[in-house]
Amino acid sequence: MSRSLELHRLAECLHLEFSGDPQQLIRGVASFDSATASDLCFLADARYRARLGASACGAAIVPAGFQPVASDGERAWLFSEHPQRDFQRAIHCLQLERPRPQPGIHPSAVVADSARLGEGVYIGPMAVVGEGVELADGVTVGAGCILEEEVRIGTRSLLHPRVTVCHGVRIGADCLIHSGAVIGSDGFGLVLEGERWSRMPQLGSVHIGDRVEIGANTTVDRGALDDTVIEDGVKLDNLIQVAHNVRIGENTAVAGMAGFAGSAVIGRNCRISGRASVTGHLRIADGVTVTATSLVTRSIEKPGVYSSGTPLMPNREWRRVSARYKKLDDLARRLERLERRLSGKHDD
Amino acid sequence: MSRSLELHRLAECLHLEFSGDPQQLIRGVASFDSATASDLCFLADARYRARLGASACGAAIVPAGFQPVASDGERAWLFSEHPQRDFQRAIHCLQLERPRPQPGIHPSAVVADSARLGEGVYIGPMAVVGEGVELADGVTVGAGCILEEEVRIGTRSLLHPRVTVCHGVRIGADCLIHSGAVIGSDGFGLVLEGERWSRMPQLGSVHIGDRVEIGANTTVDRGALDDTVIEDGVKLDNLIQVAHNVRIGENTAVAGMAGFAGSAVIGRNCRISGRASVTGHLRIADGVTVTATSLVTRSIEKPGVYSSGTPLMPNREWRRVSARYKKLDDLARRLERLERRLSGKHDD
Amino acid sequence: MSRSLELHRLAECLHLEFSGDPQQLIRGVASFDSATASDLCFLADARYRARLGASACGAAIVPAGFQPVASDGERAWLFSEHPQRDFQRAIHCLQLERPRPQPGIHPSAVVADSARLGEGVYIGPMAVVGEGVELADGVTVGAGCILEEEVRIGTRSLLHPRVTVCHGVRIGADCLIHSGAVIGSDGFGLVLEGERWSRMPQLGSVHIGDRVEIGANTTVDRGALDDTVIEDGVKLDNLIQVAHNVRIGENTAVAGMAGFAGSAVIGRNCRISGRASVTGHLRIADGVTVTATSLVTRSIEKPGVYSSGTPLMPNREWRRVSARYKKLDDLARRLERLERRLSGKHDD
Repeated sequence: MSRSLELHRLAECLHLEFSGDPQQLIRGVASFDSATASDLCFLADARYRARLGASACGAAIVPAGFQPVASDGERAWLFSEHPQRDFQRAIHCLQLERPRPQPGIHPSAVVADSARLGEGVYIGPMAVVGEGVELADGVTVGAGCILEEEVRIGTRSLLHPRVTVCHGVRIGADCLIHSGAVIGSDGFGLVLEGERWSRMPQLGSVHIGDRVEIGANTTVDRGALDDTVIEDGVKLDNLIQVAHNVRIGENTAVAGMAGFAGSAVIGRNCRISGRASVTGHLRIADGVTVTATSLVTRSIEKPGVYSSGTPLMPNREWRRVSARYKKLDDLARRLERLERRLSGKHDD
Repeated sequence: MSRSLELHRLAECLHLEFSGDPQQLIRGVASFDSATASDLCFLADARYRARLGASACGAAIVPAGFQPVASDGERAWLFSEHPQRDFQRAIHCLQLERPRPQPGIHPSAVVADSARLGEGVYIGPMAVVGEGVELADGVTVGAGCILEEEVRIGTRSLLHPRVTVCHGVRIGADCLIHSGAVIGSDGFGLVLEGERWSRMPQLGSVHIGDRVEIGANTTVDRGALDDTVIEDGVKLDNLIQVAHNVRIGENTAVAGMAGFAGSAVIGRNCRISGRASVTGHLRIADGVTVTATSLVTRSIEKPGVYSSGTPLMPNREWRRVSARYKKLDDLARRLERLERRLSGKHDD
Repeated sequence: MSRSLELHRLAECLHLEFSGDPQQLIRGVASFDSATASDLCFLADARYRARLGASACGAAIVPAGFQPVASDGERAWLFSEHPQRDFQRAIHCLQLERPRPQPGIHPSAVVADSARLGEGVYIGPMAVVGEGVELADGVTVGAGCILEEEVRIGTRSLLHPRVTVCHGVRIGADCLIHSGAVIGSDGFGLVLEGERWSRMPQLGSVHIGDRVEIGANTTVDRGALDDTVIEDGVKLDNLIQVAHNVRIGENTAVAGMAGFAGSAVIGRNCRISGRASVTGHLRIADGVTVTATSLVTRSIEKPGVYSSGTPLMPNREWRRVSARYKKLDDLARRLERLERRLSGKHDD
């Protein structure tokens, strides 16, 4: 599916200035370590210049002002304001992305008669498409996906194999859902009756915007009454939990294993790092970064970077510090006592 | 499937006193924000009274002693000792819960000849039901579920799509298992032989009681020799890990992403909050609450609320505090030195 | 499938000395608590000697120097240098392991014409095997597994039901993959263009060595350019996240819910405990242990045990300590002030 390009054709596709033999053939892209003479690499950060020098790559996208010296090696250079972004575009120019399957419905799939399918839809083997489902043009439903009744999916969205989309969930255009994700499972809504828990039926749904990515084995629960909402451009990594009635704002990116408890409202352009946790019924402002494994228990009103947790230590030291930590209140009181005593005895 | 009810019929179904036009039609339930004139809402907490006042809802369940004033709006009132519980019942009265599928076996399902199916069982498309499986009356097996050999499931239990139940697992009555859950996978039992790990075969099973709920993509491992046990009325949210030979006591509720290491024994009526972790081979008493993201490394013998972890801070402050934290033992020693010195110099 | 063995035959199979009636029949293995007179138990640790005494087990594997006394009960003894390991072998001698399914392809499976299948391969119901897939001799593909195109799996590897293996992933021999695992999903590679995230196509793959175990609902992402690598003998428990371009060294064992961010390199013979997190682009040396829920944010260069986090406390105390913790920098400064003042006033 991929195609080779002569250097000048690749530079043209990328709208970049270049130096080197215009006829040189570029066949692929690679990291510095595994590149061969027909591969393109990129240098985004001067820290990696030694690895560039040691690489066998035939061409490299480098920052606009880059001045190649002998130790950088003999190769073609493409000069870019955004080397990583243009490297990404080069992947497109060289047609290296995995192609989508040809449109069609695999004979083993079970598709309800009432489902409405747009042009160019693909439904893979063993997939199940329920009553009243609407798939817009160019939607890809991978093998073994289960779409319950009344699901709606927008144009060009791609579901990898073995995704569950529960009844009534709406997914926008150009979304990417990875294997094992579950969208629209019941929220965890419980009411105590004596000692027993009774379930509050979860009557809301999930509304996912355009250009949303949802990682492998991530779960997004449906709302209790209103919908759980994931706005346009949100990116969720693997094994994330989004509880009922959470709202995640536009273009927020969430790394693996993060979790959001019920009714948390996350702003736009936030970065929630790996394994960060957000408790329920709070708000995080736009532009907030939460670092890895931090726990947010109150609303965050100002943009900025927030953290919790303690640094890694050799276990022996950590045990000593932990013992002190448990007595921290006592330690602080003793310090106050000393301060009072000294201020009494040695008044200035 | 849902039905409209006149106000007096709804009040009758709920055994509640009411005020308002007895003929007023109630068609659905909603949150204050999205309700219309034909919707029922509920007020469980006086904090939300302003939202009630601003709502378009046609009727509201309110606490028994509630005295409506002008700012609460013109609407029907139903007076309840337990507004949330009666709201839940109203959902039932109005038949708003998603109906179960009609009994039957989808032609694409693979059901072993030796499987024994009760009355009113539903088996969805692409489901696989293994040799010797027993499904009691009214069991629902969702699309794409895999039930290995000798699985037994009690009356009315419902498996959402794409659940795996491994060989020999027993599930009680009225259980609810969400999509992607895996019940009965092998425990993580390893024995070192030199530098290599060798597997201890996991010969136990999983025994799940009645009225248990298991969330999406949650995993429950089978026991090594004896069974992993989840007692009646336990509620597990999404993405939880229950390792081999864990026992979780009756009516304990566990929020998303919590984890239990091997052979941990959790009491009854506990509340394990989101992302809490329990290490192996310990006991937690009945009635214990563990707060979000806490790590339990020793047995807990008394009921109460337990926590670990540090509060969220702006990253800049957090860095300073973290640096101090690493030196906490030194800091405490220095304080002790000052105390000794002062008690020597200024003896009372 | 299992078989009973007379005591002398079992001892012979295990190459162990024994005492007791050589004709005594052993039918199974069990824990002390649930054993009957025909069961074999093992005593690995003197702490459990009281439970041994109270057990009904008919035979026990005990440490080589073990001297039975009256309170240990009347039973057969097998003397071993490695009781747990020999117990594991006894399971094998007694054929108690769950047998693999008979080779064959279930008629409901969808297997591409171009797939190459070795001898004795089993493909379960509803499984999908894509174009160009290679399954070596004795591979078992469970029900509902999806193997995308060009996947290669080595001899005797076993995939439990409902595993996804994405295109081009290579898995070695004698691997064990549990239900719900996803191997080869796209890495979380994003590039900002203005406020929007754009995806870096993930062109690498996943390379899994021999004798690797991967737990239920664990996710292993494919590399961005080079492969994500899991070396021989690595054991991964349930619900683990392995991000793109991570490398995990030989024989490292990782407990449930641990997570590895992009490009982390983990050494050989490490033990990563439950819910430990490793941030991206760092190295962990061989032989490192990271304790439960710890966060590794810098490279670890020396073998040893490392920890982070704070001890569990009653919530009331924890609140007090947390408040002090937030002021730890202030507290340290105040201590320094006292120290300076005292050293000035009371110079020795």
